[in-house]
Amino acid sequence: MNNKNNMLIDFYELTMGQAYFNQGMENKKACFDLFYRRCPDKSAFALAGNVQAAVEFLRDFKFDKDEIEYLRSLNLFTNDYLDYLSTIKFTGDVYAVQDGTVTFPNEPVLTVVAPIIEAQIVETKLLTILNRSSLVTSKTNRIVRAAQGRAIMEFGTRRAHGESAANEGALDAYIGGAVGTACTMTGMQFGVPVLGTMAHSYIQSFDNEYEAFKAYALSFPNNATFLVDTYDTLGSGVPNAIRVAKEVLEPMGKKLAGIRIDSGDLAYLSKQARKMFDEAGMFDTKICVSNSLDEYLISELLKQGAPIDTFGVGENLITAKSEPVFGGVYKLTALENEKGALVPKIKISDNIEKVTNPGFKDIVRLYDKDGKILTDVVKLYGEKVKKGAIDINDPNSTWKVTTVTDYTPVKIKHKMMEDGKIIYDFKTPAEKREYVAKQIETLREENLRLTNAQTITINLSPALAELKERLLEEHNKGSKNNKKVNHNIENIENY
Amino acid sequence: MNNKNNMLIDFYELTMGQAYFNQGMENKKACFDLFYRRCPDKSAFALAGNVQAAVEFLRDFKFDKDEIEYLRSLNLFTNDYLDYLSTIKFTGDVYAVQDGTVTFPNEPVLTVVAPIIEAQIVETKLLTILNRSSLVTSKTNRIVRAAQGRAIMEFGTRRAHGESAANEGALDAYIGGAVGTACTMTGMQFGVPVLGTMAHSYIQSFDNEYEAFKAYALSFPNNATFLVDTYDTLGSGVPNAIRVAKEVLEPMGKKLAGIRIDSGDLAYLSKQARKMFDEAGMFDTKICVSNSLDEYLISELLKQGAPIDTFGVGENLITAKSEPVFGGVYKLTALENEKGALVPKIKISDNIEKVTNPGFKDIVRLYDKDGKILTDVVKLYGEKVKKGAIDINDPNSTWKVTTVTDYTPVKIKHKMMEDGKIIYDFKTPAEKREYVAKQIETLREENLRLTNAQTITINLSPALAELKERLLEEHNKGSKNNKKVNHNIENIENY
Repeated sequence: MNNKNNMLIDFYELTMGQAYFNQGMENKKACFDLFYRRCPDKSAFALAGNVQAAVEFLRDFKFDKDEIEYLRSLNLFTNDYLDYLSTIKFTGDVYAVQDGTVTFPNEPVLTVVAPIIEAQIVETKLLTILNRSSLVTSKTNRIVRAAQGRAIMEFGTRRAHGESAANEGALDAYIGGAVGTACTMTGMQFGVPVLGTMAHSYIQSFDNEYEAFKAYALSFPNNATFLVDTYDTLGSGVPNAIRVAKEVLEPMGKKLAGIRIDSGDLAYLSKQARKMFDEAGMFDTKICVSNSLDEYLISELLKQGAPIDTFGVGENLITAKSEPVFGGVYKLTALENEKGALVPKIKISDNIEKVTNPGFKDIVRLYDKDGKILTDVVKLYGEKVKKGAIDINDPNSTWKVTTVTDYTPVKIKHKMMEDGKIIYDFKTPAEKREYVAKQIETLREENLRLTNAQTITINLSPALAELKERLLEEHNKGSKNNKKVNHNIENIENY
Repeated sequence: MNNKNNMLIDFYELTMGQAYFNQGMENKKACFDLFYRRCPDKSAFALAGNVQAAVEFLRDFKFDKDEIEYLRSLNLFTNDYLDYLSTIKFTGDVYAVQDGTVTFPNEPVLTVVAPIIEAQIVETKLLTILNRSSLVTSKTNRIVRAAQGRAIMEFGTRRAHGESAANEGALDAYIGGAVGTACTMTGMQFGVPVLGTMAHSYIQSFDNEYEAFKAYALSFPNNATFLVDTYDTLGSGVPNAIRVAKEVLEPMGKKLAGIRIDSGDLAYLSKQARKMFDEAGMFDTKICVSNSLDEYLISELLKQGAPIDTFGVGENLITAKSEPVFGGVYKLTALENEKGALVPKIKISDNIEKVTNPGFKDIVRLYDKDGKILTDVVKLYGEKVKKGAIDINDPNSTWKVTTVTDYTPVKIKHKMMEDGKIIYDFKTPAEKREYVAKQIETLREENLRLTNAQTITINLSPALAELKERLLEEHNKGSKNNKKVNHNIENIENY
């Protein structure tokens, strides 16, 4: 999967590593959280991306000889450090939510606890993997929801931002709910169903449209879907499709699988085409449409009663065109002290939302009686969540406390790696796709709206809220009294 | 380069191939044009993407045994066809503009002439390579132009849509004018300069900011750029940077290379920081800024007189966030007849702009006396462009004729492959970057504006305009008289 090419690293990971190494800090354990601050498209939630690929990358992480030699050629790093890098492996622990889990802004979806250079150096690739896959899985699910049970096919390979964007993006799309992809590589590599029939150039390569359809029907009598808009959808495409169905397929005991309309007014054309097929007794012939579709256009087509069975979605899905950036970040939250304990760290910012939640943390999801998500509580690792009733705190204004009752708490993070080894059984892509569908059922209709979705805000546990307040207070005191403030605080927890 | 993984193919390329094969058409030559219909960001032009990667992909194109076995497992293809695919190579000719060439909508930037299955099956990957690279090269150049000579650093790996988007995208960025990238892989693979120093987590990993800077300065006395906004840019970051410069670097005979500001009001903070450094006599210390920059924010900062030396640009560059889709298409324009001649083909559309330009074509660029581009003339291959004066036709309204005089004509397409072999010497990335800078000089200020750019419309040569008119006329006659119209026309040219 996504596990080769370890040099996909921001160069600063390596220079920071040198400085840590020179300070003898390489065995100091650090805790990093991966999280995001907002959901693309103003969604209420995002679906976690390809955690499996991220964890497999960590398992296989190493530098090859030629990579070390390239680094040596830059004349920036010491030989001692390069020797250290030449045998580096990821030996840490990873805690994360499953692929496809519903997640919310500001909760740590993945946590790394590892010696600091290891934890630092894997930052870039972890983010690259999870940002794109969260983005495309979440975007696809919006499009799938808009289609209200009709099939979405992923057609975006040629507009994806390169090979991995296309291939791994098609896997994301499948897990997000697409029925399949046109990307053959994804079919082969991940077992995702592959789909597709013909382009305009195919039609143009024959003397006429009828001959083109006929040749295709003879080659694929069980799977013929004709592209009908090369010359004139209703004047030529659909009539030729019906003629080939009657003259070629029916005598073979076969039916025309479908047509695809790729231009024009898709609502009008699909209605007329449906009428023509029904009049010809071809009730099973499916109508597929494509042409720069997205969740809004699909909603609109269905609202107009367009009798469309499947939607081929290209560039707007695979690039998440409406908002093509998933802003996952990776922040230090704790650092080992001399006694081997993880000391919580906080990152201050003038922007209140950018102040990080300190410490080694877990997530508990609170469900109501209907199995819908009430909220997520981010808590310190090992902190017990009370049964019956819990006080939870607004993450930005920790004085704001809500008491929740009548909930079922469920831990949603799992320990997936221990000492650099995978200790978690990942689902197959088809199982992940099923899991996503079930995850969506844990949200209310209001959270699922494509516009003006009702958001779900996470909360902090009492102990985490107290820790955050204390660290902020200490920072404020420190910055008043002494610019050279010491940001260590006492150890609050031994993980 | 981008030349492995031949399964990055839309599945319909393979099913169309089967139908062509069943018709015995596999040796029939076809001519396909790769072009786009509009430039992202309403630019007047786009820079051609990584043509070298596209051509190298064609050179190396083949299916491996396991790929053929995967296709066999789908029970859709005949054994004869799979045998054919198992030995397929690209044996055609390719004509294209150089990497980084200024191009305009609707001109064929790359033309493939090859047996039809070969030409068809490589469509997806050619588009995937050229769409992303044209997009990112062009976007980067907009950002570089906004910076008015100051350096742009590519910092987007973590927000790129996967490994190839990050790695090959950073190469695109370099060719488009960035001075370097944070992506280490791109440094190693393509020789692009790599850059980067430290993250907030690095600062947090030390007892305080001063110690963090000091450790870094000791590790990299020649290249220290401190991130100054972890706690308080002007209250702590810049003072600590000055202190480390004075206490650590100056005694070693070194100077502080620079600082980076990653949050807050970059105009205000950069001005204050500059003042503080100047007062400390540190005139050579550079100020770098980052934080969701794009061409508009950079223009704005410079308009406000912000004394910034370098800009680190992340997600908005590498995903081309403002418009993340480059809409390159690949259309059949001619097909071999029984006599071995290429017969022009046209694709009709209700949308006039989507009617293709038929035939095997070339591009001649007309320059004025100042070396600026007047227009591009798309002409039939082999058609002579008259010296002195030429009549050129609007591509959508061919009756609209303009006479141009006083121009210097230059052919901008080159034959890069012959019989599947590369016959063209590609420039190095650094040379391509130089070439892009020179290409930009062939445009007027009005064409280079970031908003409301004056567009340059291409024109058709007299013979091409006539051919297009004739094919449209024949189509109209055909669709009136007979739905089963024959779209072949007489051979107008033997290529």
